[in-house]
Amino acid sequence: YGKNTIKFLRLHREGKQHFVKEVEVCAHLRLTSPQEYLEGNNSLVIPTDTIKNIVLVLAKKNGIQSLEQFAIDICNHFMTTFCQVAYVKTYVQEVPWQRLHEDGVPHIHSFICVPDGIRFCEAEQCRNGPLIVFAGIKDLKLMKTTQSGFEGFYKNEHTTLPERHDRILCGELFCKWSYGECKDFDFNCIWKKIRECILEAFAGPPDCGEYSPSYQKTVNCIQMLVLSRVSQVQVIEVVLNNTFYNIVDMKNLGLTNDKEVLVPVEAPYGSCACTLGRKKFFEA
Amino acid sequence: YGKNTIKFLRLHREGKQHFVKEVEVCAHLRLTSPQEYLEGNNSLVIPTDTIKNIVLVLAKKNGIQSLEQFAIDICNHFMTTFCQVAYVKTYVQEVPWQRLHEDGVPHIHSFICVPDGIRFCEAEQCRNGPLIVFAGIKDLKLMKTTQSGFEGFYKNEHTTLPERHDRILCGELFCKWSYGECKDFDFNCIWKKIRECILEAFAGPPDCGEYSPSYQKTVNCIQMLVLSRVSQVQVIEVVLNNTFYNIVDMKNLGLTNDKEVLVPVEAPYGSCACTLGRKKFFEA
Amino acid sequence: YGKNTIKFLRLHREGKQHFVKEVEVCAHLRLTSPQEYLEGNNSLVIPTDTIKNIVLVLAKKNGIQSLEQFAIDICNHFMTTFCQVAYVKTYVQEVPWQRLHEDGVPHIHSFICVPDGIRFCEAEQCRNGPLIVFAGIKDLKLMKTTQSGFEGFYKNEHTTLPERHDRILCGELFCKWSYGECKDFDFNCIWKKIRECILEAFAGPPDCGEYSPSYQKTVNCIQMLVLSRVSQVQVIEVVLNNTFYNIVDMKNLGLTNDKEVLVPVEAPYGSCACTLGRKKFFEA
Amino acid sequence: YGKNTIKFLRLHREGKQHFVKEVEVCAHLRLTSPQEYLEGNNSLVIPTDTIKNIVLVLAKKNGIQSLEQFAIDICNHFMTTFCQVAYVKTYVQEVPWQRLHEDGVPHIHSFICVPDGIRFCEAEQCRNGPLIVFAGIKDLKLMKTTQSGFEGFYKNEHTTLPERHDRILCGELFCKWSYGECKDFDFNCIWKKIRECILEAFAGPPDCGEYSPSYQKTVNCIQMLVLSRVSQVQVIEVVLNNTFYNIVDMKNLGLTNDKEVLVPVEAPYGSCACTLGRKKFFEA
Repeated sequence: YGKNTIKFLRLHREGKQHFVKEVEVCAHLRLTSPQEYLEGNNSLVIPTDTIKNIVLVLAKKNGIQSLEQFAIDICNHFMTTFCQVAYVKTYVQEVPWQRLHEDGVPHIHSFICVPDGIRFCEAEQCRNGPLIVFAGIKDLKLMKTTQSGFEGFYKNEHTTLPERHDRILCGELFCKWSYGECKDFDFNCIWKKIRECILEAFAGPPDCGEYSPSYQKTVNCIQMLVLSRVSQVQVIEVVLNNTFYNIVDMKNLGLTNDKEVLVPVEAPYGSCACTLGRKKFFEA
Repeated sequence: YGKNTIKFLRLHREGKQHFVKEVEVCAHLRLTSPQEYLEGNNSLVIPTDTIKNIVLVLAKKNGIQSLEQFAIDICNHFMTTFCQVAYVKTYVQEVPWQRLHEDGVPHIHSFICVPDGIRFCEAEQCRNGPLIVFAGIKDLKLMKTTQSGFEGFYKNEHTTLPERHDRILCGELFCKWSYGECKDFDFNCIWKKIRECILEAFAGPPDCGEYSPSYQKTVNCIQMLVLSRVSQVQVIEVVLNNTFYNIVDMKNLGLTNDKEVLVPVEAPYGSCACTLGRKKFFEA
Repeated sequence: YGKNTIKFLRLHREGKQHFVKEVEVCAHLRLTSPQEYLEGNNSLVIPTDTIKNIVLVLAKKNGIQSLEQFAIDICNHFMTTFCQVAYVKTYVQEVPWQRLHEDGVPHIHSFICVPDGIRFCEAEQCRNGPLIVFAGIKDLKLMKTTQSGFEGFYKNEHTTLPERHDRILCGELFCKWSYGECKDFDFNCIWKKIRECILEAFAGPPDCGEYSPSYQKTVNCIQMLVLSRVSQVQVIEVVLNNTFYNIVDMKNLGLTNDKEVLVPVEAPYGSCACTLGRKKFFEA
Repeated sequence: YGKNTIKFLRLHREGKQHFVKEVEVCAHLRLTSPQEYLEGNNSLVIPTDTIKNIVLVLAKKNGIQSLEQFAIDICNHFMTTFCQVAYVKTYVQEVPWQRLHEDGVPHIHSFICVPDGIRFCEAEQCRNGPLIVFAGIKDLKLMKTTQSGFEGFYKNEHTTLPERHDRILCGELFCKWSYGECKDFDFNCIWKKIRECILEAFAGPPDCGEYSPSYQKTVNCIQMLVLSRVSQVQVIEVVLNNTFYNIVDMKNLGLTNDKEVLVPVEAPYGSCACTLGRKKFFEA
């Protein structure tokens, strides 16, 4: 049980300059005894209202240096303070406020919401177990208008899809990775670096791109680049939900449509997911 | 990888009377080799477009006797037809069309959408493994305006919640259960019976209700009643996301509010989940 | 300016039986002077927080006999209490809680949310002007699987739609009507009667239905039936957003699909709207 | 009647460089005769499927120089081609694809979706009437963490809001303006300029900001700045839906919260709207 979508803004001031971090936190606990389920005995139950208070108090006391550190702080607090807690899991997601700029000059206290990929993290711990930290990015929508195809696939009597060597590749990315033993990582810096890897692996070189033979291969390229460039990442999961763009057939309308007008097909949509670690891999 | 939200309507006619089943299907596969991820070799890949075609063809050929039977049909088709498939998982969700009635008379071909709890099911199979079937109900919103409290909970310096013995209990239920060995079950009949159990366990007797000492206990009551009444259910998971109703303090406005005007607190919201089987249990 | 989505639950008890009315209220005002916009002078501004308090106090004092009466109460309060208010508009929408039944027996304090068409109303008044009351139903999804076609329409070189005399008609209805001089209307009773008219005009007789040559004609039938049966309605607006169901072409898959498997096309969707009064009409 | 959410992507190539414009179009018509409503006579009705085809054909033939020019093209086509059209209205909204950059280098064919304010426009025309063009921005979320207050407002027995001279101002902006006689405007350039005006008027100078005594005054400042800087704008409407941030009271938790931890109150939310023209004004 736990409390979901605890939303708050942490405002930090340095002189006249303001810094904001608005987050949404979910915190879930498992207790050592299920007596509240079986017997209706609430004596060990920490009310979700108290969970909310603790999250807000930690935000006030510690601030939010990084989402990951804040998630770690919450786990530590519950494990240290309550002996009836057998397991704790925390999820922290950021509202993407960015400092406003006027003619290139940063504003001291004004911000704009720019949701081009949402940062999140998770931390979880079993009593007597290690603290495990995940981080990720979601709702990141990318498109490339060429250098993508899908050919040589398996065919039978239910196949109607034609082969294509020049199609639009468009999708929404979800990436989540785990860190190994958490030493003094600069989580903010690592996150930015991974985001850059994702964009680079998706798009290829700016002047020519790189051919993608399938969504699956693009997913793999993203994972390989992150694992090769960011040593702190142990395992990386990528899910790519793709929107297919259909070339409108204009023959009946007397026109030749040379991939100029395309219609997005939002349902059904394809999805491919892969989890890749340093020595093992698993696909789903 | 797979195809999500394959939406279609299956229309069945008996004389002048029409029957509709509109569903949303997700079908996911894992192949025996990851060569399309690693090498960009698509030769074993069944395109998601083909997956969609197969789902539609099965709907045409078999009809939809029950969501569960249709999900089983899909799994069987993929396992039987494609030796490169290592694992298949299917999710089927229903659009809640109900036959329209005029003055109590059922209409032969008109329907109304009534989303008071959405029926869904899942079927999954590994090659050489058993076919596992789940069914469930989601988005079921229930409320009781008394016979609910929360007292005797753990307190410390972060506790601000007062004890209550007469509060509103309101939440959205998600229930999912697994069947054991699937013989010739009447899935439609069992589903209706379980829905009735859920409502009965939540509300208690119509003339007096039954006191709930916590969300957790209500979750457990639902599970216990289903397991005791429906022998085909092996394991049942229940998640209850609750909306808290705050009694508006009207003292500053010169009024006494005797639980007459309450304001829903939609974020943050509490959540409790429990999975209960016939011999073991697990809470999260 | 004003306050939107003021959500609250009004609980009413008669002995052991409970009655709930959960609503969402928006209340907007225009003041006699725009000085707060032009000069930043707030001296006449009634804070939106005060607007919220007033709505809650009226709910406590008057209860909610009907959405319409509650909307009227709010308008009257603002016009009577604040001479700086030039115009007031109130919107009230209901959360569709229905009493739970167990084996046909109504439960005294348990409810289920059944969103099969949402009831709403509006009331507005200019100072020295009449109080105007609207009521309506929205998000009402209906379908008929035959007795619908679309033929004889205008054709030119951009026409690709074939004529059809047996298609599925499916859409989401929005209906809004105005009352004339509001005497002692039984708003709850009238609303139910109009809902029945809408269903009857959409579906036709239960044993055979009634042929619809277009969405437009169905909209008109609904309006004509309401105006003929419910004398209190002065003007009625109907918007029908329709979902087209495409018959899946299975020729390439070796099958003949006799309108058995259809795929909903959710975007783009057609829309038709018409406003009809007792003596004049206007289409848009 | 008409067709809503006609979604498509227009791809334009210059050598190896690609340009994308993905839009969502709604096109609505009113005919000179209502015979299809009253008599079910469809002979003048242009099917919504044909409307969709026309929009796609115009996109193919003309491309999309600007949303406004495309909306104008659609209106012109319907007025010129169909004498039975009495009125046409077009709405065009953009999917906010931005060219991807790697280390500052623009990519030739890769794009990222950045929804920080959505661009839209409308064009409408009655037969024998002028063509009227509107443009706008919506879903633009802005925040300033100081230089905002609300004092000196009207008080009575229902007032519980304290006066504040240092609060967070946060809201979602909707701005829509009309152009006068449309000559050869550079719609893209004007739109960017207006967006900058909005940000500047909201935030004030980057090094100190500017005090806002109310949401209403901020709305007015935005309008005044746009009207003074952009001569092509005739009338500008601004709606500001604000999210209130509540300072968490931590006294019971033994802490002093100096505006460091705040909780957003998403419902109910305040709203203020104002429409300002060059010589007249109107507030709602």
